[in-house]
Amino acid sequence: MLREILAHPGKRLRPLLAFGSGAGAKNIASLIKGAAIVELVHLATLVHDDVLDGADQRHGADTPNRTHGAHAAVLFGDALFAHALVLASEHTSSEICSIVARASRDVCSGEVCQTFSRGNGALSLEDYQRQIRMKTAVLFEAACRVGALLAEHPPEHIKACSEFGLRLGIAYQIYDDLIDLLQDDKKAGKTLGTDAASGKLTLPMILERNRRGGDPAAELRAGKNPREVISSTTWRECFRLLDAEIASAEQALSPIEGSPSPFYLLRLTAFLRAATAKLSAQA
Amino acid sequence: MLREILAHPGKRLRPLLAFGSGAGAKNIASLIKGAAIVELVHLATLVHDDVLDGADQRHGADTPNRTHGAHAAVLFGDALFAHALVLASEHTSSEICSIVARASRDVCSGEVCQTFSRGNGALSLEDYQRQIRMKTAVLFEAACRVGALLAEHPPEHIKACSEFGLRLGIAYQIYDDLIDLLQDDKKAGKTLGTDAASGKLTLPMILERNRRGGDPAAELRAGKNPREVISSTTWRECFRLLDAEIASAEQALSPIEGSPSPFYLLRLTAFLRAATAKLSAQA
Repeated sequence: MLREILAHPGKRLRPLLAFGSGAGAKNIASLIKGAAIVELVHLATLVHDDVLDGADQRHGADTPNRTHGAHAAVLFGDALFAHALVLASEHTSSEICSIVARASRDVCSGEVCQTFSRGNGALSLEDYQRQIRMKTAVLFEAACRVGALLAEHPPEHIKACSEFGLRLGIAYQIYDDLIDLLQDDKKAGKTLGTDAASGKLTLPMILERNRRGGDPAAELRAGKNPREVISSTTWRECFRLLDAEIASAEQALSPIEGSPSPFYLLRLTAFLRAATAKLSAQA
Repeated sequence: MLREILAHPGKRLRPLLAFGSGAGAKNIASLIKGAAIVELVHLATLVHDDVLDGADQRHGADTPNRTHGAHAAVLFGDALFAHALVLASEHTSSEICSIVARASRDVCSGEVCQTFSRGNGALSLEDYQRQIRMKTAVLFEAACRVGALLAEHPPEHIKACSEFGLRLGIAYQIYDDLIDLLQDDKKAGKTLGTDAASGKLTLPMILERNRRGGDPAAELRAGKNPREVISSTTWRECFRLLDAEIASAEQALSPIEGSPSPFYLLRLTAFLRAATAKLSAQA
């Protein structure tokens, strides 16, 4: 089952964060293992997400849920997560275990909160921010922290990279939520507004509701075009908030300007900036 | 959700194993935490099992699956497991993390193997023994190892207790599998032969098939009484194997006779011996 899902990888963002944060490491094998640990945790959450959403396809291939059934897929996700922690515990110190286990717990808690707030039209901006921080950003942060730690970088390097990961994670989740409302990607088999359809409130819906009242999420669920439901004022505000997160990610690296890490990590923000500009033109 | 499931506990066998193996510990708080870690892992597997089996009741109360739905229950199980590892990583050394993560991975792998072998009438005795070892006995073993380690007992104590846990775990799972075919417990809401009904081959079915050929599991699935399907020769052989496991659990403690651990741990084998004798009278 592991071989099957590894044959169709995603973007491997979390390992990239670990490698960028750990640039200059002497023990490359240890850094690679750290990157693999974080990616395994991410894979475990994807396997479970696909069971819970009844998803048949991911990255253009059948999901374990589809191929082996929900029973085997839930257990497989559990085993993946446990294996990640086995690898983490191969370090003598429990620090890597602690980072990975804490981040995993936050990811699950964030997803539980999101599940319980499905269909809650009154979700506040603060709740949304807290949820995306827990379900996405803390694992980005953990990837950076693990990478920097395993490279034995000094505390200010670890701190700068971790903050970068956290900010990039928030930005990335906002971007992903905007994609769901703006990008009708036939190739990826994506349909517009799947978040709204599942009762999930995202940034544009929350900001639009706060601006004019009413229930924009319900309008989207009823099949209205996101470009009609969400005003141009709100789209601008969404992209402004997204840009601000990207900027604070970049800013977080200023204390370690001289090290090789920013060279790699700033490519990721540059990539997200370009993708954001493209998406913004479609709003 | 945690408060709900803790309100209706099971037998707390794994914490008892940790406390017995750690008897004489100076740092009681640390031992209690170790016991809690192993129990949390066990609870996580129960929460997921109940989702996968669509079970509404456990220990006389509604399951999280029933109360909060499969979505929240899967994520809750994940969070429980992650929380167990967070607690484990609070020890400076990664040894506790390693034991807990390895045992958890084995439990999940054992369950995956069992899932894939459902409906396989040709399952060998060796496969069965491997499966019950992984899905049950390794966590019993881990409970004992964690307890003995946290009490800072010497290596021969840790080894003796771990072996005791492993043997008791195998015995306990055989006992549990016999219960499923012999004890029609109206109070517990249990029905006879649920293992056979779900396509799971257990010791009596395997030994009976090996003895006379045919497909005893299919006969049970068809609704025949286990006492007719399984011969008295096979029942005797099952109880003989179970007694032998209990005896080797007891035997494992002989190198540490003088310590307080056997005093507590041998109560568990005594309890299982008595329950086994009672069950054997019903076969």
